[in-house]
Amino acid sequence: MSSKSGTPKKNLMLFAGRSHLELAEEVAKCLNVTITPQQARTFANGEIFVRFEESVRGVDAFVIQSHCPPINEWIMEQLIMVDALKRASAKRITVIMPYYPYSRQDKKHKGREPISARLLADMFKVAGADRIMTVDLHTAQIQGFFDGPVDHLFAQTVLCEYLRDHYGDKPITVVSPDSGRVRLAEKWAQELGNRPIAFIHKTRDPDKPNEAMANRVVGDAKDRLCVIIDDMIDTGGTVAGAVQVLKEEGASDVVVAATHGVLSDPATERLSRCGAREVIFTNTLPIPDEKRFPGMTVLSIAPLIARAIEQVFEDGSVTSLFDGNA
Amino acid sequence: MSSKSGTPKKNLMLFAGRSHLELAEEVAKCLNVTITPQQARTFANGEIFVRFEESVRGVDAFVIQSHCPPINEWIMEQLIMVDALKRASAKRITVIMPYYPYSRQDKKHKGREPISARLLADMFKVAGADRIMTVDLHTAQIQGFFDGPVDHLFAQTVLCEYLRDHYGDKPITVVSPDSGRVRLAEKWAQELGNRPIAFIHKTRDPDKPNEAMANRVVGDAKDRLCVIIDDMIDTGGTVAGAVQVLKEEGASDVVVAATHGVLSDPATERLSRCGAREVIFTNTLPIPDEKRFPGMTVLSIAPLIARAIEQVFEDGSVTSLFDGNA
Amino acid sequence: MSSKSGTPKKNLMLFAGRSHLELAEEVAKCLNVTITPQQARTFANGEIFVRFEESVRGVDAFVIQSHCPPINEWIMEQLIMVDALKRASAKRITVIMPYYPYSRQDKKHKGREPISARLLADMFKVAGADRIMTVDLHTAQIQGFFDGPVDHLFAQTVLCEYLRDHYGDKPITVVSPDSGRVRLAEKWAQELGNRPIAFIHKTRDPDKPNEAMANRVVGDAKDRLCVIIDDMIDTGGTVAGAVQVLKEEGASDVVVAATHGVLSDPATERLSRCGAREVIFTNTLPIPDEKRFPGMTVLSIAPLIARAIEQVFEDGSVTSLFDGNA
Amino acid sequence: MSSKSGTPKKNLMLFAGRSHLELAEEVAKCLNVTITPQQARTFANGEIFVRFEESVRGVDAFVIQSHCPPINEWIMEQLIMVDALKRASAKRITVIMPYYPYSRQDKKHKGREPISARLLADMFKVAGADRIMTVDLHTAQIQGFFDGPVDHLFAQTVLCEYLRDHYGDKPITVVSPDSGRVRLAEKWAQELGNRPIAFIHKTRDPDKPNEAMANRVVGDAKDRLCVIIDDMIDTGGTVAGAVQVLKEEGASDVVVAATHGVLSDPATERLSRCGAREVIFTNTLPIPDEKRFPGMTVLSIAPLIARAIEQVFEDGSVTSLFDGNA
Amino acid sequence: MSSKSGTPKKNLMLFAGRSHLELAEEVAKCLNVTITPQQARTFANGEIFVRFEESVRGVDAFVIQSHCPPINEWIMEQLIMVDALKRASAKRITVIMPYYPYSRQDKKHKGREPISARLLADMFKVAGADRIMTVDLHTAQIQGFFDGPVDHLFAQTVLCEYLRDHYGDKPITVVSPDSGRVRLAEKWAQELGNRPIAFIHKTRDPDKPNEAMANRVVGDAKDRLCVIIDDMIDTGGTVAGAVQVLKEEGASDVVVAATHGVLSDPATERLSRCGAREVIFTNTLPIPDEKRFPGMTVLSIAPLIARAIEQVFEDGSVTSLFDGNA
Amino acid sequence: MSSKSGTPKKNLMLFAGRSHLELAEEVAKCLNVTITPQQARTFANGEIFVRFEESVRGVDAFVIQSHCPPINEWIMEQLIMVDALKRASAKRITVIMPYYPYSRQDKKHKGREPISARLLADMFKVAGADRIMTVDLHTAQIQGFFDGPVDHLFAQTVLCEYLRDHYGDKPITVVSPDSGRVRLAEKWAQELGNRPIAFIHKTRDPDKPNEAMANRVVGDAKDRLCVIIDDMIDTGGTVAGAVQVLKEEGASDVVVAATHGVLSDPATERLSRCGAREVIFTNTLPIPDEKRFPGMTVLSIAPLIARAIEQVFEDGSVTSLFDGNA
Repeated sequence: MSSKSGTPKKNLMLFAGRSHLELAEEVAKCLNVTITPQQARTFANGEIFVRFEESVRGVDAFVIQSHCPPINEWIMEQLIMVDALKRASAKRITVIMPYYPYSRQDKKHKGREPISARLLADMFKVAGADRIMTVDLHTAQIQGFFDGPVDHLFAQTVLCEYLRDHYGDKPITVVSPDSGRVRLAEKWAQELGNRPIAFIHKTRDPDKPNEAMANRVVGDAKDRLCVIIDDMIDTGGTVAGAVQVLKEEGASDVVVAATHGVLSDPATERLSRCGAREVIFTNTLPIPDEKRFPGMTVLSIAPLIARAIEQVFEDGSVTSLFDGNA
Repeated sequence: MSSKSGTPKKNLMLFAGRSHLELAEEVAKCLNVTITPQQARTFANGEIFVRFEESVRGVDAFVIQSHCPPINEWIMEQLIMVDALKRASAKRITVIMPYYPYSRQDKKHKGREPISARLLADMFKVAGADRIMTVDLHTAQIQGFFDGPVDHLFAQTVLCEYLRDHYGDKPITVVSPDSGRVRLAEKWAQELGNRPIAFIHKTRDPDKPNEAMANRVVGDAKDRLCVIIDDMIDTGGTVAGAVQVLKEEGASDVVVAATHGVLSDPATERLSRCGAREVIFTNTLPIPDEKRFPGMTVLSIAPLIARAIEQVFEDGSVTSLFDGNA
Repeated sequence: MSSKSGTPKKNLMLFAGRSHLELAEEVAKCLNVTITPQQARTFANGEIFVRFEESVRGVDAFVIQSHCPPINEWIMEQLIMVDALKRASAKRITVIMPYYPYSRQDKKHKGREPISARLLADMFKVAGADRIMTVDLHTAQIQGFFDGPVDHLFAQTVLCEYLRDHYGDKPITVVSPDSGRVRLAEKWAQELGNRPIAFIHKTRDPDKPNEAMANRVVGDAKDRLCVIIDDMIDTGGTVAGAVQVLKEEGASDVVVAATHGVLSDPATERLSRCGAREVIFTNTLPIPDEKRFPGMTVLSIAPLIARAIEQVFEDGSVTSLFDGNA
Repeated sequence: MSSKSGTPKKNLMLFAGRSHLELAEEVAKCLNVTITPQQARTFANGEIFVRFEESVRGVDAFVIQSHCPPINEWIMEQLIMVDALKRASAKRITVIMPYYPYSRQDKKHKGREPISARLLADMFKVAGADRIMTVDLHTAQIQGFFDGPVDHLFAQTVLCEYLRDHYGDKPITVVSPDSGRVRLAEKWAQELGNRPIAFIHKTRDPDKPNEAMANRVVGDAKDRLCVIIDDMIDTGGTVAGAVQVLKEEGASDVVVAATHGVLSDPATERLSRCGAREVIFTNTLPIPDEKRFPGMTVLSIAPLIARAIEQVFEDGSVTSLFDGNA
Repeated sequence: MSSKSGTPKKNLMLFAGRSHLELAEEVAKCLNVTITPQQARTFANGEIFVRFEESVRGVDAFVIQSHCPPINEWIMEQLIMVDALKRASAKRITVIMPYYPYSRQDKKHKGREPISARLLADMFKVAGADRIMTVDLHTAQIQGFFDGPVDHLFAQTVLCEYLRDHYGDKPITVVSPDSGRVRLAEKWAQELGNRPIAFIHKTRDPDKPNEAMANRVVGDAKDRLCVIIDDMIDTGGTVAGAVQVLKEEGASDVVVAATHGVLSDPATERLSRCGAREVIFTNTLPIPDEKRFPGMTVLSIAPLIARAIEQVFEDGSVTSLFDGNA
Repeated sequence: MSSKSGTPKKNLMLFAGRSHLELAEEVAKCLNVTITPQQARTFANGEIFVRFEESVRGVDAFVIQSHCPPINEWIMEQLIMVDALKRASAKRITVIMPYYPYSRQDKKHKGREPISARLLADMFKVAGADRIMTVDLHTAQIQGFFDGPVDHLFAQTVLCEYLRDHYGDKPITVVSPDSGRVRLAEKWAQELGNRPIAFIHKTRDPDKPNEAMANRVVGDAKDRLCVIIDDMIDTGGTVAGAVQVLKEEGASDVVVAATHGVLSDPATERLSRCGAREVIFTNTLPIPDEKRFPGMTVLSIAPLIARAIEQVFEDGSVTSLFDGNA
């Protein structure tokens, strides 16, 4: 006989970088798999080394890494994992980055700047990534930076469900903390039941151009439960300022909700003191105990990621998880 | 002797597709060159043919095309011109698309959609384009779609200068026609001298979710000269609605300013009747006489494009044309 | 346990551009599938939009489009469909172009011309096409323009079968309408049973170089049933001239057979009046009623395409459909 | 000061593979340069090694190799030279292949064949070639196989000039040796002054399909000086057969002209005995003394190649060397 | 219904170049398959042609070729086979090169040299190879030259097993024939049971720099069974010199073991006369009878290759064949 | 007139990452340029941002970065600089990495490992690097990982000059600290005047396989000045052990020389106490004061890099800096 036949099998394996093992473990549990054992070390001079301890030949590999500081370490570790998977004959490699690193550098704000978010996409492509799975991109255009499928998950559904459960009976106004997120606020407003929206406008008195900026609420905040929304909160300055001005404008209460808790110093201090009733994040990025405070709530993104992985593995539909929007 | 030496020269040549020769001629005049003679034909079955009538070997080629309807024809013609230049040994090929086609399809709004703006970038790359020059992208992230330099010019400077000259003494409020352009409005407001901003919010009564949407002004319009700004105006529905609601809110007058006059039917009818005092465009796209009306002003983008071409050719700085912002 | 296993499935889905739905429906019927529902629209400014209404994740996608005028629209639509399929995680994308567009621009006829047929191949590659299926390429070398498999189907078998059935008992001479298709004529002659061949040679009297060309039959036509063959007929001028000169040379009758009925004006008028007994095409391109006339026969290419799709899907052999020649 | 300025120079260097040094020397002489010294060796196990003995940094490199047997050796040597030039920082690399190897495998004649001519183009591209210069491609479509400029030179001009000088006053008929070169014959006929054409048709008696083929002249040969033309002559069987049948048809004399003298055994024997009055080649391939015979004429292609190199180096026009046809 | 489903199958097919059919047959036998029938010819001018005689659509193709002289022929043949497989829709293409050609040119030993081993990797990639399988690379870094998986098999296990069986009870010293293979010697020493190592150092008397080099043993050879190891033996000069000097140093006996028997002239003469007790190779390269001599032993590499192919086909582990080292 | 002419200029600009400004400043001084001013910041969450403060259009850019810890930060910073230069229209981008990061992961030591050194090359390529300049690669094969020119500089010349000046009159033996660097030792031995060599062999008693390894000197050390050489010293364990065993073997004195002082803890402690008379490095990596000790000498690599940059800029010869070896 001339050839040798067989029936192909498919095999899902989950791989995790070292940045946020808690999330990876949660995802693994939702999927009912274990994280593939590996050696991952950082040598004394900072170089990272990875070796997988089981055969990965022919597998459908999902490589999860959370991109918290030291962010460049975790980027490089994930790239190296992808390279090792490619060279070890994985069949398909899906890079899961719950928070897409460098997503704010998605354009040249001025001349002679990089577009780092595109660079990241190209680096993962050249390393061997077949697809990217990510949550709440800073701008949706970043999907177009990758030459291949991007599964873009929306944590907004998770956060809105929580808001509806806890504040659905209040007179909510959805507030964008600056002029760039008004369209996003509109989406939340719609999902929370056609709520009114507002945004904070930073102004300078045209007659006194050298004086500092002032924040001004555009839209109505008085006697409303203001929900400030954003995709991420980094140092918390903009949001804390927004809480203050909303309170001054007579908001009955302020709640803050964002997908990614980047929470660089002094975010925790600012947020815990800013007067917000509750600050809500998901755990796309790890939020260690020392960054938490009583009014903070952290929702798990793991079930959503796990469901998306299953759809990808089973050739199901990720779009259907979001009513056709992903 | 072993080798043969020489001093390289550089040579700028301008090439123009057939969509908007008037603009190309204006640019040529500003540059003090003539458009390179070519045969460009559309065969009976719709296939396009181009042949250049002068040697293009070693030249620094600038290929200008305006992407008005039939937009796919003009895309294909420009691609074919780039291919011909590549194969005829042009040294460098700059694609000038004053209006970047398919720029609104810069992301998947829902699942299973294309990202056509990225596709365009890849098509021009594979055809042989070394760089792209364009004006006022719908979103700046599109720069990141192209693997190479993108010279992003801002017509806003041209339009704001006109507005300052004609309306600078009025109490201007800059208005975004919807929630997605508020950040843009903020930029204009700054360039016009720290003016206040507002935007139109489309709402649905939460108690009557099945009823039609209503427009609502977020911000102050009363007794102000409202300048509605946008990157492009297509059928004009959003803008005409915005003019109406601003008037109802007590705006003293309304002026409309946008870079790209796409002006699909029934834009001209809507804009001429909407009650705006003046509607201002640039000529990135051709605006034929039958689409013009008394209150419309069309400013030429040619001097800006010509200056940028010169900077590119002379290894000068395009960024410097825009105070470091491009 | 460490991983999650499963058995892969494969799923054929058929997608159709809007240019020639009748052919797509025929192919679907032969395959016993339905065309995947999609939204496909052309916006007012000419930009095309496509969204698929069912999940396409992991499917073996076949995207059919006929490239009739407006040919650049249909090229772009098919490219956009491929991009959407790639980004929506289709497993494999086969582009079916029964008539390969721009196939006549497969070389530089003179200097500074494009090679548009190569450009097309690269554009589909960069959009995400894994393979191309096409019928009767203008020159077989075009297969080499695509970096991947090209399934090249031969309508000649369909047309020859018809000719044998209807004219097999006649003294057939196969005639190439010009000097470039003589090799093709030889192939037909072989398939029709080792028939003699002839061709039309355009000459100019060397002593009167400024006078118009004259057609001359090289080979014997007298008292023969001349079958003029070609891969495509566009405006019909060459073929109509060939019919005339063959009649003058004493051909008993003339039949015309070609795969692609491009039929740009005034093809219908010319062909209907040229004196040919019958003109035979396939429906690789749509031939609307107003272009048909009594002596025209249109054979369906759908069964052939459907059989090829099945072979591709089932990992069978396309070559075997053509006795090893494809 | 911030930077360091200078004026670029350009430098032409000629590199030669070992296959046909005589031609390379002739080209060098025409250009008034010397061939760059190099070490080129074939190791005992057949591996080829090349090292250049002068700096090639920044040069405009022209790498000439004639692709005679052992053809795969010479292909590999040229590829290795290109790789070495790329890694040694040559600025631009032009691959000169007077005879494009594997040009007859430019399509799949049957299923499951390679398209080796495309493979060659890709191999040279990946090695680092920026452009290709070649003479009389077997089919012009091969230009489209390379992703970059191809300078396609026509030896036909050299050969026709010789024919006009020596046979211009005779009643020439241009003859294609088979059905695939009729279009080429037409071009020669035009360049020789609108001469009539003919071709040899291989037929099989339909009633005796198992019997051997017979050659038949289609067109008039009687009392004419028949000039059989082709791009290349390999074993000479087709051409020798053509001479015979033309003589039988009453040709007054037969001359053979072809660009590439591949001349595999037993070509020399066949050609020297076939009855042709003269057989004319160029030296794109080396024709050693033992393959020559009294009636053979070999014209040098070196001046044409040298002129093309100069045009490329000086950013002149190669097209102009051929009245716009290249 | 909208789509058509099926269960994918997988199919292993083995393809063999013409260089070393004996090895290919052995591998086929181990795998219990037959070599896929093909036409493979070398035309008179040296061009190679291949056509497969069975459908290869969708198969998992393994293409084996041994790279002995004429090495460039066999490289080109294998490339052409890969191209044909790609264009005939093979699903996956594994290139098996038991001896990686040009592996000694894996770096620039001096300036202006090629890195031919990288060029080879790129050529196979561009032709369509998905993976490479090879045995005992000259340097392991060559794996990194290929953009994809490389299955690197170790013949050392086969050779060491033989040595242990035949010489395990002797006082073995493992000897590197020069300074560049000492690390390799260390690996063999470990596998043979922590044996001592030595190497041959070529020295020049610093006081007489113009005199010829002398070999010197660094390490102890006296009264030991010296096993000279190497990845390949080409002309045998280095090894024969090493045997001599080891004997002079008092070695009790010398055995030579190497994976690849390149054996260019005068290797056989040198090795048969050098005084070694036994010279052991594998058959990664064919060793014809005329190159063999009484003291030569040739072990088959076929079982190892066959097991690796099975692991690749079955998504098993190649690494496990070598205790985690491959 | 049809076009616009000019004479191109070339402009060298030097860019420096933040890792080792002292070296960059030294290089700048040697070149008589200043480092191009830029903003380079690390945001609170670890993302790096760079913007150049002068136009870089058309420049010949040299981007220097030393890859010390935090090594992944500096890799990413350099990649981002390259991306910004590419998008800002630099003409050519040379990446200078005096120490090539991840160079020890240049192969898979075991299965399922990455080849990070290749990954790095691909990442810089995709970011936009045209060439790489580096010093003393861990293995020369890494040159082949980059698809483009690599200028490989040898610090060995700098170090050997110092050794000759200070120890030239001593009975030097060049010692490789392990079996993998013996070939390198041979090169140094040659450059120092045909000195004898030795190496340290790690052995395990075959009869006591579970006991720890012992170091053994292969070659003569007694009464010699032993110079231990290596490309880099990381934690210093191997070298310190080598010094000890050489002393035990009766070496009169031991000097250590290596290009790259990686010097991870506890290297400084080990080296300062190991008994070596002098330890010599270059400053390819920064060696801060706290890592220095009395017996350490640091030579500057800046003059060598500067000379190489000049050769690259002037299209001179880098090879000539190393007598044809680079």
